[in-house]
Amino acid sequence: MVRTNAFYAQSGGVSAVINASASGLLQTARQRSGKIGKVYAGRNGIIGALTEDMIDTSVESEAAIAALKHTPGAAFGSCRYKLGSIHEHRAQYERLIEVFRAHEIGFFFYNGGGDSQDTAYKVSQLAAELAYPIVCVGIPKTIDNDLPITDCSPGFGSVAKYVATSLREAALDLAAMSRTSTKVFTMEVMGRHAGWTTAACALAGEHEGDAPHILLLPEVAFNEKRFLAKVEEALERHDHCVIAVSEGVKGPDGEFLSALGLKDSFGHAQLGGVAPVISNLISTKLGCKCHWAVPDYLMRSARHIAAETDVEQAYAVGRAAVEFAIAGRSSVMPAIRRLSDAPLSLGHHRGAARRGGQSREAVALRLHQRRRLRDHRGGPPLFGATHRRRSLSAI
Amino acid sequence: MVRTNAFYAQSGGVSAVINASASGLLQTARQRSGKIGKVYAGRNGIIGALTEDMIDTSVESEAAIAALKHTPGAAFGSCRYKLGSIHEHRAQYERLIEVFRAHEIGFFFYNGGGDSQDTAYKVSQLAAELAYPIVCVGIPKTIDNDLPITDCSPGFGSVAKYVATSLREAALDLAAMSRTSTKVFTMEVMGRHAGWTTAACALAGEHEGDAPHILLLPEVAFNEKRFLAKVEEALERHDHCVIAVSEGVKGPDGEFLSALGLKDSFGHAQLGGVAPVISNLISTKLGCKCHWAVPDYLMRSARHIAAETDVEQAYAVGRAAVEFAIAGRSSVMPAIRRLSDAPLSLGHHRGAARRGGQSREAVALRLHQRRRLRDHRGGPPLFGATHRRRSLSAI
Repeated sequence: MVRTNAFYAQSGGVSAVINASASGLLQTARQRSGKIGKVYAGRNGIIGALTEDMIDTSVESEAAIAALKHTPGAAFGSCRYKLGSIHEHRAQYERLIEVFRAHEIGFFFYNGGGDSQDTAYKVSQLAAELAYPIVCVGIPKTIDNDLPITDCSPGFGSVAKYVATSLREAALDLAAMSRTSTKVFTMEVMGRHAGWTTAACALAGEHEGDAPHILLLPEVAFNEKRFLAKVEEALERHDHCVIAVSEGVKGPDGEFLSALGLKDSFGHAQLGGVAPVISNLISTKLGCKCHWAVPDYLMRSARHIAAETDVEQAYAVGRAAVEFAIAGRSSVMPAIRRLSDAPLSLGHHRGAARRGGQSREAVALRLHQRRRLRDHRGGPPLFGATHRRRSLSAI
Repeated sequence: MVRTNAFYAQSGGVSAVINASASGLLQTARQRSGKIGKVYAGRNGIIGALTEDMIDTSVESEAAIAALKHTPGAAFGSCRYKLGSIHEHRAQYERLIEVFRAHEIGFFFYNGGGDSQDTAYKVSQLAAELAYPIVCVGIPKTIDNDLPITDCSPGFGSVAKYVATSLREAALDLAAMSRTSTKVFTMEVMGRHAGWTTAACALAGEHEGDAPHILLLPEVAFNEKRFLAKVEEALERHDHCVIAVSEGVKGPDGEFLSALGLKDSFGHAQLGGVAPVISNLISTKLGCKCHWAVPDYLMRSARHIAAETDVEQAYAVGRAAVEFAIAGRSSVMPAIRRLSDAPLSLGHHRGAARRGGQSREAVALRLHQRRRLRDHRGGPPLFGATHRRRSLSAI
């Protein structure tokens, strides 16, 4: 194989650990400099390729590349941009080839969620449809944890830790105030179509009766009567009630609750926010004081409280992507495979780490598989996720 | 002085470090057991005294008392409850004396903000007006940082660290997304009548042009035209705009912006939230995609990211309260005095700590003084606050 350069870009909503994947990829590429030349990072995802706006990472210091592992945000800029089909938007793909050829790009790495893997798959068609030889590898990332086949998605573990920690702290605050003031606290959680991040709020509780008392998942239609009965029950038992609600909760009519008729003073529909809607409902119907929080970007960007397992997994999928590419495996995405269902205690984990034991591993997932299997997954969230550390290895 | 027992209680909105004050007070009281007997903690503030619902802390282990220093919430429960005047509500004060006498309470410690210091002052009148000998010491606490005379309020430093860290992380997220998606991010900050917590968001930026680009303080009337011009200017210069807004921002008419006509689907006025109002305004007038966050309780309860200086100061005022009480100084509150205006660099600080140097110290503030000087303070926030460590000692 001729030594060629690589293109790497970040796409979709940012996570707290997407730069750890960049760090894993760039450090590994440098170690394999006999196989990969320069790595160019696209500014703002695939748009950086289309506009030939690329950052030559080879001029960055080792320290700067290492520091990416603990840098929040998306260091090279992200984008929400979908490539059209290769048949209907041929000119766009020819432009990509023009840029790739000018920079001798033979490897394409795309770091993102479901839509980003779709982009990686489409770029991989350059090789077959337009006879431009390129090895394409997708790198998983999404806080929503809704990528199929991979056991979990880098970005999710950190959000799980953030929401569980934050909700527990806020619940202690509420419990101290409820006798004479606020009785109900509602926290809104990202994940419009998948309830994993909301379900992760359950990690805040250790014992029966601990907060959160109610979870509202986007997969379950909101039932006002049943919900209010549960709030009353929590108030009766605990004198306060903590609720985690997904931004994507829908009413029985299939409409988002967040859009339920909130108008500002100008009569414009109000932007987002289901937590205030839920709070208002409780306040109106049950007559108690409510507080609500919408952490929004704070939740997904909170590198200060990222989960160590998540950082290591994000780094490992970046590293695995390079290994796969060098092995000539195109149109694949490194995935995380579960090797054990028993969450490891810290003691067990240490033993396992010493013995080189692992509860997860990376496997190559063919990108077209994930397209077929988009709706394949389900079941309860993996509460053990944030208890595991250094459990991923690339094979 | 006869050895008598003590009553300690927590009051008002919870901070991330109020339990550190409890830890400082209880540990010091144990060390001075020749002067102070048992410390009873009131459940839910002064209500615990009125209802004789008190926790005997002497049965708690040393480890449990030490652990309070890093425990979120208010361990003994807080309250929002104002004592009436001793002349109009004599029966309530007689009830206090009844309970205090039954438990041989000779020391009263009340841990809270402005209203709580008022309660401590009123209880201190028992001695003079009802001839019940009691030494009363207030312990400062408020995230709003609006207690007079004391240089800063325990609780504020941690909120400052939380908002600055969170806003910086979210700003990096926004900067990565703004090319193709969200352009404006608005974070709402607690502090209805004081802008210190909002101003602390400025700590998120290091260089000219860094986020936040706009701060909306409760002390400055909102001017829609000027505000939108500033948003447009930020978008022009940086392609994105980060805004921190106080929950207490008011329009030119003196009304809270958060109450500006938001109605839910039932026509009820919407609960709180000025960030969505600001976002809606920008989205409507400038036509760009906006995100907003309202961290609410998450902000003030975030023990996971508490500022070390704040923890130490909270502990020190708890310790100082006991020393003052033993010295017979009644109707006082330990306050923090600034000894230097130069924020200490980490290197300087280490040197200072080794030499025993301090930039702040505790002084006794007479409780009636804070009543007179309620509106005394002003000026810019103390940005150096969170850079200082172990800078308080009780004198």
